[in-house]
Amino acid sequence: MRTSKYLLSTLKETPNDAEIISHQLMLRAGMIRKLASGLYTWLPTGLRVLRKVENIVREEMNNAGSVELIMPVVQPSELWEETGRWDKFGPELLRIADRHGRPFVLGPTHEEVITDMVRNEVKSYKQLPLNLFQIQTKFRDEVRPRFGVMRSREFIMKDAYSFHLDKESLVETYAEMHQAYCNVFSRMGLDFRPVLADTGSIGGSGSHEFHVLAESGEDLIAFSNESEYAANIEKAEALAPTTPLAQATKELELVDTPNAKTIAELVEQFDLPIEKTVKTLFVKASEEIDADLVALLIRGDHDLNEIKAENLAEVASPLEFAEEAEIRALIGAGPGSLGPVGLELPFIVDRTVAVMSDFGAGANVDGKHYFGINWGRDVELGKVEDLRNVVEGDPSPCGKGTIQLKRGIEVGHIFQLGNNYSKSMNAAVLGPDGKNQVMEMGCYGIGCTRVVAAAIEQNHDKFGIIWPEAIAPFQVVIVPMNMHKSDRVKEAAEKLYADLTAQGIEVLFDDRKERPGVMFKDMELIGIPHTIVIGDRSMDEGNFEYKNRRNGEKIAIAMDSVVEHVKAQLS
Amino acid sequence: MRTSKYLLSTLKETPNDAEIISHQLMLRAGMIRKLASGLYTWLPTGLRVLRKVENIVREEMNNAGSVELIMPVVQPSELWEETGRWDKFGPELLRIADRHGRPFVLGPTHEEVITDMVRNEVKSYKQLPLNLFQIQTKFRDEVRPRFGVMRSREFIMKDAYSFHLDKESLVETYAEMHQAYCNVFSRMGLDFRPVLADTGSIGGSGSHEFHVLAESGEDLIAFSNESEYAANIEKAEALAPTTPLAQATKELELVDTPNAKTIAELVEQFDLPIEKTVKTLFVKASEEIDADLVALLIRGDHDLNEIKAENLAEVASPLEFAEEAEIRALIGAGPGSLGPVGLELPFIVDRTVAVMSDFGAGANVDGKHYFGINWGRDVELGKVEDLRNVVEGDPSPCGKGTIQLKRGIEVGHIFQLGNNYSKSMNAAVLGPDGKNQVMEMGCYGIGCTRVVAAAIEQNHDKFGIIWPEAIAPFQVVIVPMNMHKSDRVKEAAEKLYADLTAQGIEVLFDDRKERPGVMFKDMELIGIPHTIVIGDRSMDEGNFEYKNRRNGEKIAIAMDSVVEHVKAQLS
Repeated sequence: MRTSKYLLSTLKETPNDAEIISHQLMLRAGMIRKLASGLYTWLPTGLRVLRKVENIVREEMNNAGSVELIMPVVQPSELWEETGRWDKFGPELLRIADRHGRPFVLGPTHEEVITDMVRNEVKSYKQLPLNLFQIQTKFRDEVRPRFGVMRSREFIMKDAYSFHLDKESLVETYAEMHQAYCNVFSRMGLDFRPVLADTGSIGGSGSHEFHVLAESGEDLIAFSNESEYAANIEKAEALAPTTPLAQATKELELVDTPNAKTIAELVEQFDLPIEKTVKTLFVKASEEIDADLVALLIRGDHDLNEIKAENLAEVASPLEFAEEAEIRALIGAGPGSLGPVGLELPFIVDRTVAVMSDFGAGANVDGKHYFGINWGRDVELGKVEDLRNVVEGDPSPCGKGTIQLKRGIEVGHIFQLGNNYSKSMNAAVLGPDGKNQVMEMGCYGIGCTRVVAAAIEQNHDKFGIIWPEAIAPFQVVIVPMNMHKSDRVKEAAEKLYADLTAQGIEVLFDDRKERPGVMFKDMELIGIPHTIVIGDRSMDEGNFEYKNRRNGEKIAIAMDSVVEHVKAQLS
Repeated sequence: MRTSKYLLSTLKETPNDAEIISHQLMLRAGMIRKLASGLYTWLPTGLRVLRKVENIVREEMNNAGSVELIMPVVQPSELWEETGRWDKFGPELLRIADRHGRPFVLGPTHEEVITDMVRNEVKSYKQLPLNLFQIQTKFRDEVRPRFGVMRSREFIMKDAYSFHLDKESLVETYAEMHQAYCNVFSRMGLDFRPVLADTGSIGGSGSHEFHVLAESGEDLIAFSNESEYAANIEKAEALAPTTPLAQATKELELVDTPNAKTIAELVEQFDLPIEKTVKTLFVKASEEIDADLVALLIRGDHDLNEIKAENLAEVASPLEFAEEAEIRALIGAGPGSLGPVGLELPFIVDRTVAVMSDFGAGANVDGKHYFGINWGRDVELGKVEDLRNVVEGDPSPCGKGTIQLKRGIEVGHIFQLGNNYSKSMNAAVLGPDGKNQVMEMGCYGIGCTRVVAAAIEQNHDKFGIIWPEAIAPFQVVIVPMNMHKSDRVKEAAEKLYADLTAQGIEVLFDDRKERPGVMFKDMELIGIPHTIVIGDRSMDEGNFEYKNRRNGEKIAIAMDSVVEHVKAQLS
């Protein structure tokens, strides 16, 4: 490709509204342009990367026996009513009406459509298992789209759905998809981790997220330092301490704490170790128990894990914290002075809190705390659960090593759906016993547009993007110096362009009438892995200059061996 | 691909609601399934064909120097307001609102979006010409979607847009696109014609449609039998007859014709040759002339060309025929008795009518006609224009040969837009003279999903589809007979599948436990070009059977030379 026939569209300045580095670099490198909030045009350089991502995904899905199809973007509301998601899905689901006023949605996902198709087409267990995928434009009407294509409204996703007679078959395909996803992200040259994920309100029996590791990631991932264990912090189990409950050594003491409304203030003003404090958080109770609120007790230096809390039978889903007024009405004290002693509401104790002795907590009277609280003696322990986020140094739940935390960007998600959709839509086949049997389902997503941004978050420096070879927009760029003045440079550049192209190599030939400095800056910004510089000075010595974007290597290469050198770099 | 892991989904019965053969065969061959009116899922077999179509289009666009990008499906209303199409575009433009109530459209086409992008990114004539394309899902809210994917609401289109400093550059790129389109449809193995097209209300200076020829086509195309001339009948010029106006031989005669309200009745009841009759059609006048209606005079056996009529300055656009009540109010007679003699409204005479003598037409009195009308003597001739459709046997407007008519399906359209969009959107670049200059534009579309249906309309027989090699879903199918009983057949089939696949050939291996007859019928229906039948009987003689879908050839091929035979067929 010649830049003169191409739309390069690099920017010198970083646009103001781009908060994260991938968004900034995608704009500056001419990969994307904003059309409206959360809507982006993929310019030629961006599309070349996106297509490589899509093709790697497609090849690995094909290799794993998944079969490609494509479903409509616009979906009739009836199917969403069948599964109840027409009501349950939030305003991210863009509901539209056609010219006749009939209701449709712009598809954010395709469980309903594919389940409908499969229930019509697949009649016998002999046609199972079946694994189908598409690579398609989706729409999610985010309330506040941001971070460029990382959280846009229109995006391209690979979504796959598998159908099975039984759970065993689902688990088998799930494992194949897990491997296919590892292959996909390995081929892209990304540092990634499959991590255990919460299955949330959707239920189902198993789920993994695939994260590209990057400091800017929105998710925290918990790893073991001695095993393969990795889980989203939402899901990572905090084991019960192995140390037994210590004997009480202090008397229960009611203390005036008028200026201590937070754990930090309590610790500072009363010289209390933070490990000897407990926070008491009130959330709405579920209909399972006979109370409006339920209290959750966490050690002062720990964070509540909202997903774990929400998954408890006693807690309303979605999780909702109690308002101060509601707490006051029930307890007679405010959030700064709450605790288990004398509490007349149900409470649940975190595993770590359950083995604490001589600790301090609110006295359920404004401006007062109890110090020296001990379970059994001062208050019954009650129900114990895993309520907190793991922290670095916790023992790994796999039994090996301790927990370390890293940040990740979720780019893929695989999910054992079970019969969540097939049951409500009555998607059944004739089983070997001649009886109708509802199918088991799995679903498997990769955010193709998001992968591009995540790859940049992980692969860049202050000059721009550093593409992994497999997803670079071009493999090689030829930068001729002052070609428009030197016939010799022009001829050599044209010949090299023809020679490399003839080898099937994707070459960008920068034939613009620009100063070499401008060209170098643009090509570093775009992040093409290999650069060949052609100039009169090095040609005097029979050489071209080779530059490697990733390691910064610059070497002179004899003109007649440059094609071989490039081929060696690529293989 | 093994059918056991695939979604074959063939149907024995022809679905009731499929009117045309391509729609029937696409449903029966398991290529598409209807999700809702005008919305189709492309099942694996359909998608394989569609992707081949897309890839041929992509390669030829790349070869012609067009650069690929992709724009959002959802577009903000503001841009459509800039060009005035927010108001002018009919209800086919699906207008939607996002969660904040902001207006958007589901893009049926992308002139606005690309012109907006180019006016932001392209600043100098040095960046021109620029030719950009995308292959993308589009939406057109057809009032009555039908014919399957031939006229669906959601469809996939290749749309390209070129930008130029001047008309000369536009004409050059237009010619390159014309050639690229010829390459595309030739590579697909389709019998097609580029035909001159009307540029309609959009203006612009040149346009060609590309038609796949098929009896079921909705469009009529006029060809010369002695030259390359071809035009949509909408556009094909009917030349003025070279024969001069003949002398009057009859007197003007007022005749009672109470039972002749149509030309056919007049001809039958009064033994008048149809070539001696004239129809008078009233349409709404444009604001250019001082009349509500204008009459158009056509020979009795000719058809009005509505596009030609609409393009006249005197005629309102869009064309609208007058209601009977309006005609009666003005003339005092109904549509069955109208004519030029004594008419007090403006009229326009077709070129053929202008050289007619001694002809009959209505007398503008109910139940009466004039016979023996002659121009000049009985009524002034007035304005003469080309108003009619050409008919077979007309001299070709190119000057060579005579006109023949064929039916076609429009699959592509190229268009010199000029500055229609760039002017209203102020898309300008700095010219060589340092002054801002509005760009010239071209646009170039191919309906990828429609091409698939058109290919079937042209390539089928009573057994099913007969794919051209280049767009077949698979190149070869292996049909093993009773494989589940014969180990020898199974081994031979597995080996052949492995051998052909290793050659890069796309093979469908029908490993279902079905009777051979079922397999043969399915594979004929799907239309795979080459079949290898493996059975015990032919293996006894050391052979497999080869079948050619297009010419029906069936021959025995020695088992060890079958791979070579297939390769020879494909090359």
